[in-house]
Amino acid sequence: MSAPLSVWTNGAEVGAIAASSRAFHYGDGVFRTLLRHRGTVLDADAQIDKLIGDAARLGLAPDTALPVQLRDEIDAISAGVQAAVIKLMLVRAGAGRGYVPLSNAIDRHVFAYEPPVYPASCWERGVVVQRSSLVLGDQPALAGIKHLNRLEQVMAYRSASADAQEVLLANAAGEWIGGGRSNLFAVHDGRLLTPELGRQGVLGHMRERVLAMASGLGIEFRIQTVTDAEIVDADELFVTNSLIGIWPVRQLDQQPLSSPGSVTSSLMQQLSHPRLVAA
Amino acid sequence: MSAPLSVWTNGAEVGAIAASSRAFHYGDGVFRTLLRHRGTVLDADAQIDKLIGDAARLGLAPDTALPVQLRDEIDAISAGVQAAVIKLMLVRAGAGRGYVPLSNAIDRHVFAYEPPVYPASCWERGVVVQRSSLVLGDQPALAGIKHLNRLEQVMAYRSASADAQEVLLANAAGEWIGGGRSNLFAVHDGRLLTPELGRQGVLGHMRERVLAMASGLGIEFRIQTVTDAEIVDADELFVTNSLIGIWPVRQLDQQPLSSPGSVTSSLMQQLSHPRLVAA
Repeated sequence: MSAPLSVWTNGAEVGAIAASSRAFHYGDGVFRTLLRHRGTVLDADAQIDKLIGDAARLGLAPDTALPVQLRDEIDAISAGVQAAVIKLMLVRAGAGRGYVPLSNAIDRHVFAYEPPVYPASCWERGVVVQRSSLVLGDQPALAGIKHLNRLEQVMAYRSASADAQEVLLANAAGEWIGGGRSNLFAVHDGRLLTPELGRQGVLGHMRERVLAMASGLGIEFRIQTVTDAEIVDADELFVTNSLIGIWPVRQLDQQPLSSPGSVTSSLMQQLSHPRLVAA
Repeated sequence: MSAPLSVWTNGAEVGAIAASSRAFHYGDGVFRTLLRHRGTVLDADAQIDKLIGDAARLGLAPDTALPVQLRDEIDAISAGVQAAVIKLMLVRAGAGRGYVPLSNAIDRHVFAYEPPVYPASCWERGVVVQRSSLVLGDQPALAGIKHLNRLEQVMAYRSASADAQEVLLANAAGEWIGGGRSNLFAVHDGRLLTPELGRQGVLGHMRERVLAMASGLGIEFRIQTVTDAEIVDADELFVTNSLIGIWPVRQLDQQPLSSPGSVTSSLMQQLSHPRLVAA
């Protein structure tokens, strides 16, 4: 993981961010993370739609030119680059001190990074996930959106063991919400379950893609609360995000799981997502 | 409210903040706000202690030179300035992408701003406060500390009515936690109550000062859960922070309150905090 290769703010390449940014002081903004692979940014339009929907949840007022501006800046920042992680960020504009939001205007930031690499076994055999002791707070006003207040995730990884590739987070009711940087799916008797995210969690783009693929493949699914028994007794577990695609889970804390299971394998094959392995 | 007058990062004046800052991406840091009045920064040592204690809660490792560095930078940034708001921020160092905290080292930022001004009536007659419909999530791992994840506060002010000078926030149990940028006190039969902050809220420096003054003045106090009845039926209410000192509450939503009451007045007199009114 490296510092950004480059950063664009409101259409121009910059070296740093204004010290007055409300992202810096309050996390008053939203982001989405995209993968550029073989010179193409995957699912850019769908990700931009989600980003703009999240911004609206914070009361930001995206103007109609925003999707085209973001597309242009994605192209500009990654021109000539085969592979990159592109992070899009929309932040409430305004230089004032104080929580009170005086503007609904938007500053946009686009970051390009070197993509991370992972062992091929993360896709082939699956990953180790650990149930975190950090309990996610309930916050319906912010649930589902990918906002910049991510200390719960930082704290969860801080206490994670080094051999876990992902942590799982639950709420105070003991319902599993997802991975620290991924959405969670369980398979029971050939049917897919994924957590309902009305009080915590992020509605990831890859989650939506998996649900759409499940429909296409005739795999029944339910979006519902997911209890501890529903992950412990699952036939298969997997986690998803826009960088990794789908990672099967081969071990939940100390418990081995069949991995990759047949439903997970079907979805991985259908998705055909690039694998970020060292060259 | 204005953009910062100046910003220092790790001991040098800067024009902007590194685009890789974890404050910007995750809010992975803490802050405290201090008032400089007539050329003196109020309670700087106590505030630095609280800031460093908060940083430790995030697993940051302040080195022993930090308090002296912060004192020096406070002096440097506000040299020759009679009045300023000084914001101290400690952020987890590291340029990486991703939530996983790879370092416990600290970047320190010191900001100087023009102080805000308020009508004199905020101190003389008191303020209007509004109970917010935003419900604070439970998060014991972050409660009490003044971290950079402040979207709940932004959202609460976003839905506040223009004639309220402060919003009050409760948790899902209906217990009142405090103001959006202040701590809350109620007076019942001459006795002070202030919310217990083990699951939400910020342990403000001014809250601690008020409790210490109460002890000195022989005013009994309790730190406890504060129900709706305990604020509606209070003889007096007031809110505190390091910029305003103490503001009596003269109106809770539509309900007028005796303001300033006798306990509030005694504490205000004892505190003798500067009033940030237009010159």
